[in-house]
Amino acid sequence: MTAHGQVPTPAFMPVGSVGTVKGIDPEELQACGFRMLLCNAYHLLLRPGHHLIAERGGLHRFIGWSGAILTDSGGFQLVSLAGLSRVTDEGVWFKSHVDGALYHLTPERCIEVQRALGSDIMMVLDDCPPYPSPLERVREAVRRTTSWAQRCRLTSRASHQALFGIVQGGTNHELRRQSARELVAQEFDGYAVGGLSLGEDKSVMWAILESTLTELPDTHPRYLMGVGRPEDLVEGVWRGIDLFDCVMPTRHGRTGWLFTTTGRVLIKQAQYARDDAPIDPLCRCPVCRKYSRAYLRHLFLAREMLGVRLNTLHNLWYYGMLMEEIRAAITANRFAEFRAQFYAQRGGMMREETSITTGNGSPQPAGTMEREERT
Amino acid sequence: MTAHGQVPTPAFMPVGSVGTVKGIDPEELQACGFRMLLCNAYHLLLRPGHHLIAERGGLHRFIGWSGAILTDSGGFQLVSLAGLSRVTDEGVWFKSHVDGALYHLTPERCIEVQRALGSDIMMVLDDCPPYPSPLERVREAVRRTTSWAQRCRLTSRASHQALFGIVQGGTNHELRRQSARELVAQEFDGYAVGGLSLGEDKSVMWAILESTLTELPDTHPRYLMGVGRPEDLVEGVWRGIDLFDCVMPTRHGRTGWLFTTTGRVLIKQAQYARDDAPIDPLCRCPVCRKYSRAYLRHLFLAREMLGVRLNTLHNLWYYGMLMEEIRAAITANRFAEFRAQFYAQRGGMMREETSITTGNGSPQPAGTMEREERT
Repeated sequence: MTAHGQVPTPAFMPVGSVGTVKGIDPEELQACGFRMLLCNAYHLLLRPGHHLIAERGGLHRFIGWSGAILTDSGGFQLVSLAGLSRVTDEGVWFKSHVDGALYHLTPERCIEVQRALGSDIMMVLDDCPPYPSPLERVREAVRRTTSWAQRCRLTSRASHQALFGIVQGGTNHELRRQSARELVAQEFDGYAVGGLSLGEDKSVMWAILESTLTELPDTHPRYLMGVGRPEDLVEGVWRGIDLFDCVMPTRHGRTGWLFTTTGRVLIKQAQYARDDAPIDPLCRCPVCRKYSRAYLRHLFLAREMLGVRLNTLHNLWYYGMLMEEIRAAITANRFAEFRAQFYAQRGGMMREETSITTGNGSPQPAGTMEREERT
Repeated sequence: MTAHGQVPTPAFMPVGSVGTVKGIDPEELQACGFRMLLCNAYHLLLRPGHHLIAERGGLHRFIGWSGAILTDSGGFQLVSLAGLSRVTDEGVWFKSHVDGALYHLTPERCIEVQRALGSDIMMVLDDCPPYPSPLERVREAVRRTTSWAQRCRLTSRASHQALFGIVQGGTNHELRRQSARELVAQEFDGYAVGGLSLGEDKSVMWAILESTLTELPDTHPRYLMGVGRPEDLVEGVWRGIDLFDCVMPTRHGRTGWLFTTTGRVLIKQAQYARDDAPIDPLCRCPVCRKYSRAYLRHLFLAREMLGVRLNTLHNLWYYGMLMEEIRAAITANRFAEFRAQFYAQRGGMMREETSITTGNGSPQPAGTMEREERT
């Protein structure tokens, strides 16, 4: 439950970093079943600025989205996008990737920005080193992330705004558990696992996630940041994850990589030139109900915006429906069966996945995201 | 009346050259009030190919548009887009702007392509020289256009497909009237005026149009090709035009040039950064009902696809509503009053326009596009 409606979990959040999910209307996101968007405080701080958005009545109103919004702090973007960023215990100095202007982001300022945006869930500022990093750098990141989390925790925010901590620790099990314990001791409204899916093997990722989750209370939402593929959602839920975000459905849509119940369709391929079938005959999305692969291929080759839009819409619908099916399966207490069917439909991918699957088979009960009211 | 529904006239056709109005869904075009699209035989011949579209069940089905479609022949595009085109009395040799392949388009082949596409209204292949061209070149274009029109007329097409002739003649009054007379003698289902708005003065354009219209029967639809601005629609209707097409609402949308009842809004301007008003407070389009100028400016500066889409949708809605108001004014026999109000709202543009206005004040009666059945 957020100030902007219930968010049934486990949930996937479409990514709308700068205040829009690329090419898609808010009404369409709702129709896909999404109740919470991810926006990015880093991007919105740089452009159009959080004060401007606050003056417009906050982010929800500015972008026309009536559902919930989680704002990422931008810890990850400071690594991946900002030029010449320099991290100290005080905060991060970085140059805007938009106009090169110099910014100083501290944990306190990070919360101020998210408070101005009015998001329902804020993320702490974390120190997210690239992968791989030397152990010393990872250790420093954990220490700093814990310290910054506390400073975020102590910065004033609106009473309806939840705050999540972010676990770091790279691919080191001990550091991950330590990071998780230190955050849990601070008592956040929810806990995110950051710094995964940065290039490490998937088997390593799942093992690290499992170590981390042993330290995170299942009474609080647990959020796997920036992950991932459809099978990652199934595997994450299997291990107890409640929240996901990833650019994959939108970014892949723009490159013509389409998700289906039986695997991917690369729409540019010549085999679809005269294919009158929809992207996925089992899909009931507005795109599959109306358009053929042949037309979508034509739009893709002609670099037409409508193609990008329809591809993205289909992929988001696929993700939305997948999460709906996952929630239904959990409610019916048949998630293990659902998971087996999921892989069986995709023919053979089960083997690839099962070899690295060591989950405990006990996903979080489906429900709505609850949190303790801040006092 | 076409095989795909009635088209109330005077009408504006959005341009969907390659089989999509850039970024906009067919349902949205319907909601804007459009009942006929313009597609381009030249573009579709090159990609994905007319045979492929015919196999898919024709163009309407391929692109998911249940309304009417007029296909332009591509005479204009052969000048503006194709590299190394060479025009002879037999037809046009040109290299595809898509892949450089060599094509030979004759009047007969042009009709075959449009027959395969299954459009409701076909256009003859015309010889459209650039502006300015030497008088001899314009004279040759008129002779060739008349001859090609006859060859198009004699080429077999489906019984539901209408065929329009295209008047050429540059800015020479005598050649224009001659071209019109020669086409009328061949008895087409409608008559288009091509080769205008290519850079000549607007006053010249209107004078030429008026000369031409004296030779075109008002019992048949009269179509002013590639024109134009909102005021051009008003002025064209004033002179008796029934059909228009232009890339302006869509192309201007992409550049952030927005049409309003009181003039243009250039959304990138700093004055809109904190402007919570909709693009046009008098507009009831889905964009103006929901989004602020401030948000649209943000999307534009961030080069976000949603901004392009919303801007385009608003502009198309503006054009659709303008045509609806024009039709209502004609039906109520108060078009002269409407025209005066139109300019008054735009403050001062009346003067600019009236100085070149010499219309006869007798627009075509509003109605649906009727044509003689082919025998």
